[in-house]
Amino acid sequence: MSNWRNALFAPRCVAVVGASATPGKAGTLFLKNLTAQESGFKGQVVAIHPSARELLGAPAYSRLDAAPTGVDLAVIVTPAASVPGVIEDCGKAGVPVAVVITGGFAEVGPQGAELQRRTLEAAAAQGVRLIGPNCFGVISAGCGLNASLSIGLPKKGGVSLITQSGAYGMAAYSRSMDEGVGFSKIVALGNKADLNETDILAYLADDPETTVIALLLESIRDGRRLFEALADITKRKPVVVLKTGRRPAGQRAAASHTAALSTDAVVVEAALRQAGAHVVEDGYALLNVAAALDWQPPLRGKNVAVITNSGGVGVELTDLLEEKGLAVPALSRELQEALARELPAHGSAINPIDVTTDWARFSRMYGACVAQLMESDEVDAVVPVLLQRSALMEEVSAAIIDAQATARAGGSQKPLHICWVAPRAADSNRARLLSAGIPCHLWPAGAATALAALRTRPAADLPPPLDAIASPGAVGPDGWIATADAFSLLARQGFSVAPFVMAASAKQACAGAAELGFPVVVKAERAGLTHKSDQGAVRLGLCDEASVARVYEDFCARLGPGPALVQKQSPAGLELVIGGRRDASFGPLVLFGLGGVWVEALNDVALRLAPFGVAEARAMLDELKGGKLLDGYRGAPPIDRNALAGLISELSRWFAAAGWVSEFDLNPIIGVGETFTMVDARMRAVSPR
Amino acid sequence: MSNWRNALFAPRCVAVVGASATPGKAGTLFLKNLTAQESGFKGQVVAIHPSARELLGAPAYSRLDAAPTGVDLAVIVTPAASVPGVIEDCGKAGVPVAVVITGGFAEVGPQGAELQRRTLEAAAAQGVRLIGPNCFGVISAGCGLNASLSIGLPKKGGVSLITQSGAYGMAAYSRSMDEGVGFSKIVALGNKADLNETDILAYLADDPETTVIALLLESIRDGRRLFEALADITKRKPVVVLKTGRRPAGQRAAASHTAALSTDAVVVEAALRQAGAHVVEDGYALLNVAAALDWQPPLRGKNVAVITNSGGVGVELTDLLEEKGLAVPALSRELQEALARELPAHGSAINPIDVTTDWARFSRMYGACVAQLMESDEVDAVVPVLLQRSALMEEVSAAIIDAQATARAGGSQKPLHICWVAPRAADSNRARLLSAGIPCHLWPAGAATALAALRTRPAADLPPPLDAIASPGAVGPDGWIATADAFSLLARQGFSVAPFVMAASAKQACAGAAELGFPVVVKAERAGLTHKSDQGAVRLGLCDEASVARVYEDFCARLGPGPALVQKQSPAGLELVIGGRRDASFGPLVLFGLGGVWVEALNDVALRLAPFGVAEARAMLDELKGGKLLDGYRGAPPIDRNALAGLISELSRWFAAAGWVSEFDLNPIIGVGETFTMVDARMRAVSPR
Repeated sequence: MSNWRNALFAPRCVAVVGASATPGKAGTLFLKNLTAQESGFKGQVVAIHPSARELLGAPAYSRLDAAPTGVDLAVIVTPAASVPGVIEDCGKAGVPVAVVITGGFAEVGPQGAELQRRTLEAAAAQGVRLIGPNCFGVISAGCGLNASLSIGLPKKGGVSLITQSGAYGMAAYSRSMDEGVGFSKIVALGNKADLNETDILAYLADDPETTVIALLLESIRDGRRLFEALADITKRKPVVVLKTGRRPAGQRAAASHTAALSTDAVVVEAALRQAGAHVVEDGYALLNVAAALDWQPPLRGKNVAVITNSGGVGVELTDLLEEKGLAVPALSRELQEALARELPAHGSAINPIDVTTDWARFSRMYGACVAQLMESDEVDAVVPVLLQRSALMEEVSAAIIDAQATARAGGSQKPLHICWVAPRAADSNRARLLSAGIPCHLWPAGAATALAALRTRPAADLPPPLDAIASPGAVGPDGWIATADAFSLLARQGFSVAPFVMAASAKQACAGAAELGFPVVVKAERAGLTHKSDQGAVRLGLCDEASVARVYEDFCARLGPGPALVQKQSPAGLELVIGGRRDASFGPLVLFGLGGVWVEALNDVALRLAPFGVAEARAMLDELKGGKLLDGYRGAPPIDRNALAGLISELSRWFAAAGWVSEFDLNPIIGVGETFTMVDARMRAVSPR
Repeated sequence: MSNWRNALFAPRCVAVVGASATPGKAGTLFLKNLTAQESGFKGQVVAIHPSARELLGAPAYSRLDAAPTGVDLAVIVTPAASVPGVIEDCGKAGVPVAVVITGGFAEVGPQGAELQRRTLEAAAAQGVRLIGPNCFGVISAGCGLNASLSIGLPKKGGVSLITQSGAYGMAAYSRSMDEGVGFSKIVALGNKADLNETDILAYLADDPETTVIALLLESIRDGRRLFEALADITKRKPVVVLKTGRRPAGQRAAASHTAALSTDAVVVEAALRQAGAHVVEDGYALLNVAAALDWQPPLRGKNVAVITNSGGVGVELTDLLEEKGLAVPALSRELQEALARELPAHGSAINPIDVTTDWARFSRMYGACVAQLMESDEVDAVVPVLLQRSALMEEVSAAIIDAQATARAGGSQKPLHICWVAPRAADSNRARLLSAGIPCHLWPAGAATALAALRTRPAADLPPPLDAIASPGAVGPDGWIATADAFSLLARQGFSVAPFVMAASAKQACAGAAELGFPVVVKAERAGLTHKSDQGAVRLGLCDEASVARVYEDFCARLGPGPALVQKQSPAGLELVIGGRRDASFGPLVLFGLGGVWVEALNDVALRLAPFGVAEARAMLDELKGGKLLDGYRGAPPIDRNALAGLISELSRWFAAAGWVSEFDLNPIIGVGETFTMVDARMRAVSPR
């Protein structure tokens, strides 16, 4: 079996290297977990031990190649120093994949990093793939495989978890026991010396037992590869992602325990969202949202119907949902009338649907309202609040479960989620609802957090790539490209730049200005002069040739001899910024923002991985906090959003194709209606290696 | 007993008006709740019933004044239409306070509103104070009084809850049973026709049994009075506030069930924070944070020490704490060394303190680290993460409880909070910790939310009020005051306005300009011309008399004859905005922001109730998202923050004293270093009634 995937998730024979029968030892725990009757693992489990013939009922051998049937999966718990040798043994015994539980590698410092390097080297030489080192292990619930530190197998279900934190492997088991969350595969990545998140994602994407993937990352091995995998997978299967180590102190903490490299949190979040992932901020939400996506259809829009037996909690939940970008719209008169027929006189059918405290009718009212709303096109999700008495009444839960069954039989694909505000005394009803696949989020805050995370923007198709765009010949010091060259290059590519001429003398400058028409802008061009405004190398609003000549001479006097760029001054308009850079992990990024020092100070920009299409660029416009300026704020003419999105998308395609450009900054671009004129351009070539 | 307060919270005799013995009726429930043995209420309970002599063991009378001892508290559950009559009876029987449970008043429409008006009228005429109508009731745990719909009394403790949502009266009981939250008083306000949040707050402020007040509001009756009460109380006792109905849809929902009037959510939040309240966004946090403040000392700073047996969860919690404005600082070398002595070789003492998975040493490590950190000045709170195994081990909880006891005995006033990530199997340890007054917040998200809400800025002392400032004589249409008058007024008050002269002819304008010195700004002054820039009535940068004359004539030609204001043009600087308005509920408000169309579009402003002192104004500067522009962004000179805060505070005092000003807008004020020049002023007088 040369495929590491099948060997890892459905092994015929697993060996515990470093197995033991001494209580408290990892080798004992793994042997017990793998052979536990209740797990139902049908494969063979063997122990690798220097002297024993049998350990805890499993046959023991001194070497991996002594096991009679070939070992598919080696679980290694021997001391760190021995691991490179064990990996070599794996190779010799034809073991395709090893899970290295042992810690003491890159996470503990340079010596450990060297040991990890040697381990990886041995693995590469022998063709053995590795999970870990320094990890919690692997679970494959479908075949009963518990090659992990978890004290039992979680309930079977559709959630597969890839986690860089072993604690969440353990937490998965707790959630499974306490909340009925069902799991298929759990893979702890540890230091991910070899196999990483993207390798496992690719497998789970096609795994029929996995309906939703939960991914907890502290670091990202190859951002672009992860992005591309996610953008592909999320079209078929939801992926929920928690990235920790977002803040400097969090990164410091991550560095101190798994040697994780820091990644720019803003870039990571932009990439995950662009790829269509459900991005969450904490581990509770990660598992909770994944379970909800396993049980319920996805959320297709933002409109939520709330049914409540407490007006006050209805108000609270409405606030929280709206603050998180969802909506609780007033229902149509028609639907209100239909719902009102079920309600007492003082109830409300507007939304939230307030069934009042008329508990004698709770089960009928909840059932009927859920049924009607599950069929309605006016809302995208139905959220009954079960609070105290309604939660304590078994018949209310039963009515909701029935209403769901009927709606699903009738083809409804609307998600149903409960907002649960009840004492422990109502837990049996909660268990009943969970068994029926209806999530019961705790209190309004929990419901709002989960529902908000369910909403995602599907990954857009990528635009067709452009042919590679050649580099200009001349590159200044540090890779900076002369403004005139940058303008010419952009103009050749079809972008609209402000008309200009290059002048090598005051006379040429005057002639050029006359040709362009006044007023003009004159900019000194000198190698290394990259912040022209700050260095007094730009003069705006020159209205005659005498002024132009004076400015040219002044530049020469102050900045040394050299040419000047004479540019037709653009009419007033909205200042925009489009720029790009290449991230070491995620590749080409393009940002868009409104210009001006204020917005720069507020860092109000939208970011995407390039290239991207017009739809994605439109979404960038909607993301800006100051986006209403595009609509003609204070009497200015509105900007054509489609035209602007087209420009941003085209620049993203150009940047992706112009691999020799390391960064660029078009600041400002003057926007007037559907016209966008680039009036300054900084561009830098990738520095030669 | 004429004092409604004692009558409400410690009545000697309670009457249920509308009492019954028929199961399922409110009159039965209240009678049962009041007489329940386990509540231990020592007062007398009587039933008011047309015919019965005795109901469920309580003596029954046909009228309130027939009860042999005087009734202190009447609990009214009779139909809505009868309530005004019952209140009259209360008055005749000398009952000082009534809790009206019955619904069907203002919350159901105009007819109900009329009934509520009549009820209130009767109460006022008879000197009876009211809680409700349409409410959950009142609990006073200290004397065993359960005059509420709650099925039992909560555990006794220091939290008192004032709630406009009955559901939270019920939820309090659940939290008490499930989490050990202890309560003193619970008051449901319902429609708060008479007694409102501020009345109850004032009582609880001096109630020795109440250590912390939790306040849930859907509407606010008198914002200024609430603000002043809170600002006073929070100096002595923490107050946690949830205001719902923040968003339009939430307000619509609130309106449909308690006839709550909408209040501007931004103003409410600013007022609550200025008053030193702990502002939370949801009801779970309300009760959770209140319980934490009952059990633990307040959080005095932002630095948190995290102790964890999972590196990954340590990273996650660190991210969340920092994203919410707290910090997880690296500890000093000295403290790290001291902590490291307790840790295994691969542990980390930086912060988070990572004790690793070395479970055999958990209790010793957790105990020792908590002990050391509780004594350290480097952190303001200690947060052990108890995750899976550490949570399941009883000796770990015991060690933490011991460490707390020792620290408290030694005088430590540092709060201790647990981040709990564990299965239900560990619940007995959780209960142990809760009994020891150590909050166990669920998962990192719960811990971060609670800790962030614990942090508050104490209410600042108010500056001494200024003498009332007289109104100018002349007021234009709609109350607008001529710019020159506004400038003169501000200048007389000692504020720095750009030098100007008024000119009634082109010649005067030229002479004035020459006197002021060029360049100048010329502004047309016409009654009703309130948006001068938009109407072409402002010309900047005029450099000679000819230009001034030309502009004057142009104004006359375009805008009709009239004077002009000639102003010395201010040098370039940072544009600032200070404005004010009077809110119907909260009174005078002052806002501060950075100028310019961008920031206006982003609505980046800080808001306070006026008047306020310099410290409060300094906090406003720190609140702005674009606040770094004050520090000399991109080479501009930095603004003197103290001088600016002084100006904002002075304007707040002026506005508070100038009661005839309904609104003002100084936009822009040009700031350069410590100089702030008002270059435009709009000011409007309160319209005559």
